[in-house]
Amino acid sequence: MLCLTDEVTDTYRRILLAARPRGLVDDSTLLIDDTAEVPEPADGQALVAVRHLSIDPTIRTWMDDAPGYLPPIAIGDVVRSGGLGEVVASRTDAFSVGDTVFGMLGWQEYALVDGADSSLAVVPQGLDPAVVLGVLGVTGMTAYFGMHDIGRVASGETVVVSGAAGATGSVAGQLARIAGAATVVGIAGSDDKCAWLVDDLGFDHAVNYRTEDVGDRLRATCPRGIDVYFDNVGGGILDAALANLARNARVVLCGAISQYNEDRPVGPANYLQLIVTRSRMEGFLILDYLERFPEAQLEMAGWVMEGRIHHREHVVHGLDHAGEALNLLFSGGNTGKVVVAV
Amino acid sequence: MLCLTDEVTDTYRRILLAARPRGLVDDSTLLIDDTAEVPEPADGQALVAVRHLSIDPTIRTWMDDAPGYLPPIAIGDVVRSGGLGEVVASRTDAFSVGDTVFGMLGWQEYALVDGADSSLAVVPQGLDPAVVLGVLGVTGMTAYFGMHDIGRVASGETVVVSGAAGATGSVAGQLARIAGAATVVGIAGSDDKCAWLVDDLGFDHAVNYRTEDVGDRLRATCPRGIDVYFDNVGGGILDAALANLARNARVVLCGAISQYNEDRPVGPANYLQLIVTRSRMEGFLILDYLERFPEAQLEMAGWVMEGRIHHREHVVHGLDHAGEALNLLFSGGNTGKVVVAV
Repeated sequence: MLCLTDEVTDTYRRILLAARPRGLVDDSTLLIDDTAEVPEPADGQALVAVRHLSIDPTIRTWMDDAPGYLPPIAIGDVVRSGGLGEVVASRTDAFSVGDTVFGMLGWQEYALVDGADSSLAVVPQGLDPAVVLGVLGVTGMTAYFGMHDIGRVASGETVVVSGAAGATGSVAGQLARIAGAATVVGIAGSDDKCAWLVDDLGFDHAVNYRTEDVGDRLRATCPRGIDVYFDNVGGGILDAALANLARNARVVLCGAISQYNEDRPVGPANYLQLIVTRSRMEGFLILDYLERFPEAQLEMAGWVMEGRIHHREHVVHGLDHAGEALNLLFSGGNTGKVVVAV
Repeated sequence: MLCLTDEVTDTYRRILLAARPRGLVDDSTLLIDDTAEVPEPADGQALVAVRHLSIDPTIRTWMDDAPGYLPPIAIGDVVRSGGLGEVVASRTDAFSVGDTVFGMLGWQEYALVDGADSSLAVVPQGLDPAVVLGVLGVTGMTAYFGMHDIGRVASGETVVVSGAAGATGSVAGQLARIAGAATVVGIAGSDDKCAWLVDDLGFDHAVNYRTEDVGDRLRATCPRGIDVYFDNVGGGILDAALANLARNARVVLCGAISQYNEDRPVGPANYLQLIVTRSRMEGFLILDYLERFPEAQLEMAGWVMEGRIHHREHVVHGLDHAGEALNLLFSGGNTGKVVVAV
């Protein structure tokens, strides 16, 4: 006998990809559908009420019909997204009613999940959902493994982070400081964000790319050149960083938010500086580090509690606003992690 | 009392950089000067009669007024170039008359060298100058350290080399084969070059980029993706390779001959494939490996004698033709190492 909580209604809301966007998402590319019936879990399944969505730039890349690390979201499918939810019905030993689970729950009020799906994790109770999705979640983990495993930051080095007021960038810069970097420079898109980086997060310098010449400022703030450049944005800012590399530098390719809404990305014209400076540019995907999350999360949780890592979340209320929340990442309207409270 | 051989005349010929070229070099950018007097070595110096010049794409980059790994050649200076010469007068214990020396002798008939200059090397007698400058010289060494130290080629892997009929590329592909690569593909600019790669050098496939779609051919010849891409050319061919990388691939940035005559290089638009495939793109300079040349030259000489590495040289006769020899590299008029016999 299946026991659904009273939260379950007959139908539920979900956001479908109606058409492939060119540029930002809008009403012509996203469809809010409230006609689907709340499903009942089959044997081995559980029903999850989605509470919070993790809004990440990579979601936009999944909307393109282009080769990527995951298949494109099919037209008519629910928008793929990480999220936190509460198990409200279960026919699997893997999840109990009341469990909080993290996984690819999608932009919808309910998700049917499989007890055998190893990508789902039960999250301890009592943690702030925004922290679970942010600094201890995929964005924080991306900063951690990107800065350490790919950037190989070392004591005394000069580190520059773009998208530095974002969920990943803000943590990446603070991790560089904890690792003993001599100089940490953040690049962000407003004076308020720059003030937050320097005053609250302990960056040595912040560059407002909308009002300052990034190349000039990097030359001035990094006189010995950049040892680690953690890139979230691509475009002209990546080129400015390439022009200021130290010898044997490491360029960590985390993302290219300036390019995701373009039909065709612009490549970094200064890439030959990688030869002149004997440097490398390397990409990574956080999917490859899932097994090492627990150790990293433990370390990060310690730093958060010690006040050595600060974080901010930008919570958007209402599933219907998930598209606008995604667009915030590209307009720079957020500081820190963007979360939708469903 | 100084004893000059009878080869020394009163004046000598040298080629000066008259103006910074845009595109190929010509009479407006190079000046043949025959007015300089043959100098007499001071104490600690030697006079070298230049016999053979190593014509390399990097010479073109030194002609630009742009930051690089060496300062630009000053206007009015002799064009900087590696070369082999014979010591014809000496006032240093470092060199004896009759020695063959390798170093940055420049595009000129005579060079005054310093006995304390550690960048000069005495070359054993009896070796073919074209071999010394090519497969055992900077180009062969570039292939060796690029393929092994940066490319980290491993047995069973798929390797693609661009500029594959050039001095460096032709050796790089053969070194991949010796290292046990399962598939070696070369990209070159004529059917004759492609035939040479497959028939004589043992490449599995060759792609003529002038008549074939490089992306299509790489997809067809590298069904499991490219593990090591050794890039000498940049531009659209680099983009085609990036679109066909295997996971954890290594892109070796050796050069970008398609870009050296451009005002501003075009960056690789497909660089975000480095994220999708968790790959790296890394530059290097052969200057950093000088200390390891002897071990590598010994190994290479063995492979040459065993017939496992084939090589070709394209000898241009006459110092006055050095500019045309340089232009050959960009028109693709050469197969193998370009050498000027002074």
